[in-house]
Amino acid sequence: MAITFPAQVERWDVFEAAAAGREDGNPFTGRVIRGTFRSKSETVTADGFYDGGGVYRVRFMPSFEETYSFELSGDFSGNSAPEEARGSFTVTPPEKGNHGPVRVANQYHFAYEDGTPYYSVGTTCYVWELQSDELWKKTLETLAGSPFNKIRFCIFPKHYDYNLHEPRSYPYEGNPMDGSVLTKENFSRYSGAMPGNSWDFTRFNTEHFRHIDRSVRALRDLGIEADIIVMHPYDRWGFSTMKRGEDGLYWKYVVARYAAFRNVWWSLANEYDLMPQKTIADWEYYAAVLCEKDPYNHPRSIHNCRFFYDHSRPWITHCSIQRQDLYKSAENVTEWRQRYKKPVVLDEIAYEGNIEHGWGNISGKELVRRFWEASCRGGYAGHGETFMHPRNILWWSHGGELHGESPARLKFLSDILRETPGLGLSPMEGSWDETAARAEVRGNGENSFGGGAYYLYYYGFMRPSFRNYYYGESGEYQAELIDTWEMTIKNCGVFRGKFRIDMPGKEYMAVRVRGI
Amino acid sequence: MAITFPAQVERWDVFEAAAAGREDGNPFTGRVIRGTFRSKSETVTADGFYDGGGVYRVRFMPSFEETYSFELSGDFSGNSAPEEARGSFTVTPPEKGNHGPVRVANQYHFAYEDGTPYYSVGTTCYVWELQSDELWKKTLETLAGSPFNKIRFCIFPKHYDYNLHEPRSYPYEGNPMDGSVLTKENFSRYSGAMPGNSWDFTRFNTEHFRHIDRSVRALRDLGIEADIIVMHPYDRWGFSTMKRGEDGLYWKYVVARYAAFRNVWWSLANEYDLMPQKTIADWEYYAAVLCEKDPYNHPRSIHNCRFFYDHSRPWITHCSIQRQDLYKSAENVTEWRQRYKKPVVLDEIAYEGNIEHGWGNISGKELVRRFWEASCRGGYAGHGETFMHPRNILWWSHGGELHGESPARLKFLSDILRETPGLGLSPMEGSWDETAARAEVRGNGENSFGGGAYYLYYYGFMRPSFRNYYYGESGEYQAELIDTWEMTIKNCGVFRGKFRIDMPGKEYMAVRVRGI
Repeated sequence: MAITFPAQVERWDVFEAAAAGREDGNPFTGRVIRGTFRSKSETVTADGFYDGGGVYRVRFMPSFEETYSFELSGDFSGNSAPEEARGSFTVTPPEKGNHGPVRVANQYHFAYEDGTPYYSVGTTCYVWELQSDELWKKTLETLAGSPFNKIRFCIFPKHYDYNLHEPRSYPYEGNPMDGSVLTKENFSRYSGAMPGNSWDFTRFNTEHFRHIDRSVRALRDLGIEADIIVMHPYDRWGFSTMKRGEDGLYWKYVVARYAAFRNVWWSLANEYDLMPQKTIADWEYYAAVLCEKDPYNHPRSIHNCRFFYDHSRPWITHCSIQRQDLYKSAENVTEWRQRYKKPVVLDEIAYEGNIEHGWGNISGKELVRRFWEASCRGGYAGHGETFMHPRNILWWSHGGELHGESPARLKFLSDILRETPGLGLSPMEGSWDETAARAEVRGNGENSFGGGAYYLYYYGFMRPSFRNYYYGESGEYQAELIDTWEMTIKNCGVFRGKFRIDMPGKEYMAVRVRGI
Repeated sequence: MAITFPAQVERWDVFEAAAAGREDGNPFTGRVIRGTFRSKSETVTADGFYDGGGVYRVRFMPSFEETYSFELSGDFSGNSAPEEARGSFTVTPPEKGNHGPVRVANQYHFAYEDGTPYYSVGTTCYVWELQSDELWKKTLETLAGSPFNKIRFCIFPKHYDYNLHEPRSYPYEGNPMDGSVLTKENFSRYSGAMPGNSWDFTRFNTEHFRHIDRSVRALRDLGIEADIIVMHPYDRWGFSTMKRGEDGLYWKYVVARYAAFRNVWWSLANEYDLMPQKTIADWEYYAAVLCEKDPYNHPRSIHNCRFFYDHSRPWITHCSIQRQDLYKSAENVTEWRQRYKKPVVLDEIAYEGNIEHGWGNISGKELVRRFWEASCRGGYAGHGETFMHPRNILWWSHGGELHGESPARLKFLSDILRETPGLGLSPMEGSWDETAARAEVRGNGENSFGGGAYYLYYYGFMRPSFRNYYYGESGEYQAELIDTWEMTIKNCGVFRGKFRIDMPGKEYMAVRVRGI
C-alpha cells in the first residue's frame, strides 16, 4: 500500500500521512481510515478522512518531542483484511511563535500549552475564507498587521443581509439555488432547504475543505487562533437543516480534518438558538461526537443570539457570549464569571460601523470601552466591523481592510494585557464607580500588597479629575495614568500610603498601580 | 384684632392674611392659627404659621375666579375664646405664564391645572438658596436663561463633600458646631447630631423660612417648579435625627408655609434610604401629615439612593428615581412605568462634570443621551452639573453659573417635547435596536395611522446610515431627521408606504414622523 508521510515534524504541528485507497462507491460513507500514534509519552488514535481522487489522509498533532511510530488502519484500501501501514517520524522542537494549542489555564484565563499566557483579542469575519483569492489574501495581510489573535469564521457559506453573493465553493457536491433572485428586501424569506438546491449530503466537496485547510494554516502562521463555527442558521442551501446522520457525517469529517491544527477552537454554532430545528439533544450529540473524536481537547463553546446555552455543561470549556442587552454587555462579565466559573469571552458585543442594524453600528470608542470593561473584569471581548462599503465588503463577514478606529486601540490594550504578571486579570472589589482588576499569580502563589501587587482601574465613560488610592501604610507603589483612547501611558511617580492621581477629566482613562 | 390682607389676588397665586398675635411662651408649639376659605366652588381649610415678631400668617391658593370669604381661627391672639377674623377678597384671572399647579394628568405625564402640558426638564441645586445673596441672584439669572422648569432643593442645609461651609442661615434658633474643623478628608466622620450643636427644635428661625419664601416665589416668577426636599441625610447639625414630634412640628410648619405656592412639589427626602434612623413608619407618618395638611395635593415623591421606596404607595404621585445601576438608567423607564403605573421622573442619573465621584462626572453627551432615552420611553430626566471649580461653586449644590454642554441640548429637547400633540410620549414597540415613542392623544381620542400619527425614534449611541419605516400602504408621512447633539432638524420630505431615511452614521440621531 502506498503511503507518504514526512520523516519529521515540529512539535504541535500537523503530521499528515496520505494513503492511496479505493474510489469506488462512496468513500466518505463507506470507507474508514484511522491512525494510531505512539511515543514514549502518549498514544493517540485519530480518525482520518477521504480527500477525493483516491487519497485518504490521517492528521496528527504530536505533543512531545519524541520519536513516534504509527499505523494506519481501516478498510480504505479495499482489501478483505484491514489494511495496515506503518511508519515512524521524529518530532522536533517548536519553532519561534509556536506555543502549542491554547488551553484554559487557571479557570478563567487561557494559556498556550507551553505556558505562555494567551490574552484573546478576537475578531469575527464569518466567511472571509469563502471570498475571492484577492480578498482572501488581503484579509490575511490585514490580519498580519492587526492586534487580533483569534478569528471566528464558518465552514458553511453565509446567507444574510450583505451576504447574498455565492461563496467561492460549497461544502458538498451538488448545485445551489439560483441566487440572482435575492435582494436586500426579500432575502430573509429564503431560509433552510430552498427549492432549486440539489446537494449530496454524503459527498463532501474536498476542494472546499482543502481551501479551509489552507486558511487555517495561514492563520496558524500568523499566530491566530481559528475559532471554527461548525454550524449556523444563515442558510439558503439546506446546510442548516440536514438530518442527524448527515450532521454526524459532517461533524466527523470536520473534526478529522482540522483537529490536528494547533490553532483550532470549536464553536458548535453561531446563534444556536436561531436554529429551532435543532434540539438540545442535537447539540449534546454534536458535542459528544466532538469530545470523542478530537484527541487534543481544543477549546469548545456555543454562541447564542438571545438565550445562552447552559455554559455549565462539562464539555463547554469557555463561555462564548453574545450580549443579551442593547446597553449593558461587558459590564456583566463579573456576574457571568461567577455563574459559570469558566473563561468569559464576549464574542459579540456589537461591531464598530455604521450599517442600519443596531448590532453593527457602534463607535470605535464604545467598542474599545467594552473591551476595557470586559478585560478589567477578567473577561475577553471580540471585535467586528460593519461599515457601509461601495462593494459591500464588510470586515465582519468578508474580511478585506479595516476602516475603524478601534483596532489600533485594541493593539494598545493587548500590549497592556500581555504585561500582566502571572496569568490574567481578576475583578477586584473596588469603589462602586470604577472597574477594578488585580493580577492573578499563577500556581500556588498569592498576590500580596507590596511587591508583586498589580492593579488596573478603568473609568469608562466617567471623567474624574482625580482619584485617591490606598494600600496600607507600608510599601511603595508606582502609578501610571493610561489614556486608553489616545494610547498614552504617563508615569505618575512612586507613592506611599494614601495618594492621589490627578487625571484630565476625560473619558476612557485607566490607572495602573504596581507594588515595587 | 389687627389683620391685613389684600383685596384681590390672582388665581393660583398666594393669598396671605397676616394677624398680630401673642409672642409669649412658644408660639410655634403653643399657638394655633388656621383659615377657612369659601367661594361658590370650594371650601378650604389651611393651617397658618407663626412668622416671628408677633406675626401669624395664613396662606391660601384660590382655584377659582370667584369671590372668597374667609375666617381665621385659633388661639393665636391669646383671648380666652377662639379668635375669629373675617374678610373677603376677589380672585382675578391668571396672568400670562400662570397655568396653575402641576398635576399628574394622564397617568404617566403632567399638566398644569389649566390643561397646558408640563414637560419636566428638571435640575438639582440642593442648597442654592442658602448661599450668599450674590450667588442667589446669579443662580436665578442662570435659571432664567436655562431650559429648566423644575429645580430640586433642600430646606435644611447640606453637609457633604464640597459642602463644608456654613449656610446663610439655619432653620432653627440656636448655634451650629464649629465647622472650621472640617476637611475633605474628615467630613464624612461628622454625621447627625454632633457635639457643639445647640438648637431649639421647637423654635424655627423665621428669617431662614422667609428667605425660602422669597426663593420659591422667585422660581414661580420664572415658571420653575420648586421640588422641595424636606428631609435629607447630609447633616452635621442633627436636623436628620430629630424625634418624631420634632419632625412632625417641622413638617406642619413647612406645609403651612409653602403649600399655597402653586409651583411647589414635595420630595419627602433625598436618598431616604441613607437615613437608617427613619423607619418606613416614619416616612408614612410624614406622608400622612403632608396629605392631611396640604389642601392642594401638590406632587409628592420620595427619592432613593440604592433602594426604591415602594412607589406604588397611594400617596406617591410619581416615581422620583435615582438610577440604581452605573451603566443602565434611562433605559429602564419602560419597565418602571409598567411596574408603578405612574409618571417616572429620573431625578438623578449622574451629573455632567468632572469631579472624582462617579455620580458627578459624565459627559454632556451622555447626560443628553439619557434625557432622550428617558423621554422617548415616556419618562422624564433630571440634570445636574458638577465641574471642579476654583471656589468650589458646583451647580449641583450651590447654583451659580452653568458650564456644561448639556443645557443647550436640553433646551432643544424641551422645545421638541412641547411640540408633542396631545400630552406626552408613550413607549412604542419598535425594533429591538431603537427607542420608539408615539404621542398620546388626550381624553377619549385614539391615535390612528394616518392623520394625527406622531412617532419619535431615538438611536442613542448607535450610528445607522439609514433606517426603514413603514406604516401601511395608505397615508402620507412627513419625516424629519433630528441631530439631538448638533440641534438641527432636517425635513426629509413626504413619504408613502415603505420608505427609507438616510442618516449620517453618527451618534445621537432621532427621526420624527408625522402623519399628514
